[in-house]
Amino acid sequence: MNHPHYQHLAGIFEAYLAEHQPRGTPDSLYEPMRYINNLGGKRIRPVLVLMAYNLWHPDVAPALPAALAIEYFHNFSLMHDDIMDEAPLRRGKESVHTHFDRNAAILAGDSLLIKSFELLIDLEQRYRLGSSVALVMAKTSLEICEGQQMDIDFETRTSPSEDEYVEMIRKKTACLLGACLRIGSMIAGAHSDVSNSLYAYGENLGLAFQIKDDTLDVFGDPELTGKQKGGDILQGKKNFLYVCALNTLPESDKENFINSYSNVTSDQGISKVIELYRSMGIEDYDREKQKHYFERAMSSLHNIKGVDTSMLKSFAEELVKREH
Amino acid sequence: MNHPHYQHLAGIFEAYLAEHQPRGTPDSLYEPMRYINNLGGKRIRPVLVLMAYNLWHPDVAPALPAALAIEYFHNFSLMHDDIMDEAPLRRGKESVHTHFDRNAAILAGDSLLIKSFELLIDLEQRYRLGSSVALVMAKTSLEICEGQQMDIDFETRTSPSEDEYVEMIRKKTACLLGACLRIGSMIAGAHSDVSNSLYAYGENLGLAFQIKDDTLDVFGDPELTGKQKGGDILQGKKNFLYVCALNTLPESDKENFINSYSNVTSDQGISKVIELYRSMGIEDYDREKQKHYFERAMSSLHNIKGVDTSMLKSFAEELVKREH
Repeated sequence: MNHPHYQHLAGIFEAYLAEHQPRGTPDSLYEPMRYINNLGGKRIRPVLVLMAYNLWHPDVAPALPAALAIEYFHNFSLMHDDIMDEAPLRRGKESVHTHFDRNAAILAGDSLLIKSFELLIDLEQRYRLGSSVALVMAKTSLEICEGQQMDIDFETRTSPSEDEYVEMIRKKTACLLGACLRIGSMIAGAHSDVSNSLYAYGENLGLAFQIKDDTLDVFGDPELTGKQKGGDILQGKKNFLYVCALNTLPESDKENFINSYSNVTSDQGISKVIELYRSMGIEDYDREKQKHYFERAMSSLHNIKGVDTSMLKSFAEELVKREH
Repeated sequence: MNHPHYQHLAGIFEAYLAEHQPRGTPDSLYEPMRYINNLGGKRIRPVLVLMAYNLWHPDVAPALPAALAIEYFHNFSLMHDDIMDEAPLRRGKESVHTHFDRNAAILAGDSLLIKSFELLIDLEQRYRLGSSVALVMAKTSLEICEGQQMDIDFETRTSPSEDEYVEMIRKKTACLLGACLRIGSMIAGAHSDVSNSLYAYGENLGLAFQIKDDTLDVFGDPELTGKQKGGDILQGKKNFLYVCALNTLPESDKENFINSYSNVTSDQGISKVIELYRSMGIEDYDREKQKHYFERAMSSLHNIKGVDTSMLKSFAEELVKREH
């Protein structure tokens, strides 16, 4: 995210986070929370809260507690997902359950989730908001848990449909991006129609973003992504490419593909799957899908009148055109 | 809890819970939530919400969503505590992570916590409450996590003081009982002074309750408690009796006691610890402490004028006099 205004908002958020790291007794509960908050990342979600608020107000300070709540929530979900996925690393460093232990990651995750709600409920009381940002967050949080459960369930199913896959990433990833924009605009006092359009922008952008992510795993340049080419294939992860290939193959070839995909152990095996994807034109199909959701995101912005949405447009372009 | 009015309120709550079991897609997320809700128990916490509301209003229906939120919260904390403690059983049946798996217990626990907040935030919006029951819940939830972390930390420390132990059980157990009464009275529209007194009643009763629980482990009748005599001793659990004994023993005897307590493997070993407790008068000391917190709970009720608190008095007596 190289846009100067993005950098500006991310900088404001980083400073606010540094001043508002969770502290309390016993410190053994709070240290893992600070640890994950300090792992960095692009801070896309809190910046989206600020960007939405910023459409109406130049000073984003009143939206910072909500941005922090979203970042806390996101980090809670990473902590618990990493336990469930037994992921040893997060952002290139030890995941929380590796660096501390599993119990610390469960309990500090719970506490970040609670603190996220506390921030939003408190903000709502102070500003006497007519509609409830905390309720938006509750509904979104539950959808994210549903998405995570769908993802877990997919691992033991052989053939999810493309629609089911899209519904899973909509819940697991996209709806939080939508909620960031909805919440930012609600705090700014925007009309609900406008908040809904911003939500649709975020949600569709989230879908494009996740499909892009799945694509980079196979068709990205490892020197730019910093990840092993075909890492998802090696892990047998049923990503968008897998689902598309499976649903395109003739019935007679499906079982063979399912078996070989789940048994890839070498670079040669990875290359074979990639070769199949190429021969089937999966990359083009995939690019079309990204474009589809990207354009839906852009067209949602047309409903928003009287404010300058150019920042959101360039953010979307950068997110979908990224090579890492 | 044999009081007829307690039974009446518990019955109303059971019927409401049965009609409001969490359902959604995928069902694999919601099934573990219904499972733990169906494990039963005395429903002390939701009934306390209803009892507090009932002081002012005969029909408890408006307080039922808050009672449900509290039960959801309590069951979330049981689910996650059982993972952390690796407890195979809960209420004599398989714990959630045993019956399903660990990931289901993490994620369904998260979802119950979220649903708990959703219910309270929604209720607050609908009733346009001046002060925030959801904020009370957030602050209480965080204290409970702190209490759980203190409990975990105690297991690797040899000599917590009595004050530290009381602070741990205050956070882990007692403050939720206080919060139930505070929330019930807030929904009823009670003055904050009255809510504070009810909180103090619940908190002190919770301390007496937990100390009673620790005492029953050793001095209770196994036929009535349904638990092995000295089960805590066998597990090396640092309960109130352990902490009292440790802090009463002369310095020269402490190390010996710590070592022998952590290495009990037989009925004979249990008997030896119980014999030591008896010789030190721990049972009497302990009973004095229960009485102390019980009386503080009762005296908090004196501040509440104009309503009939006799139900709360008999509830407290029953809770502290119970033999199981």
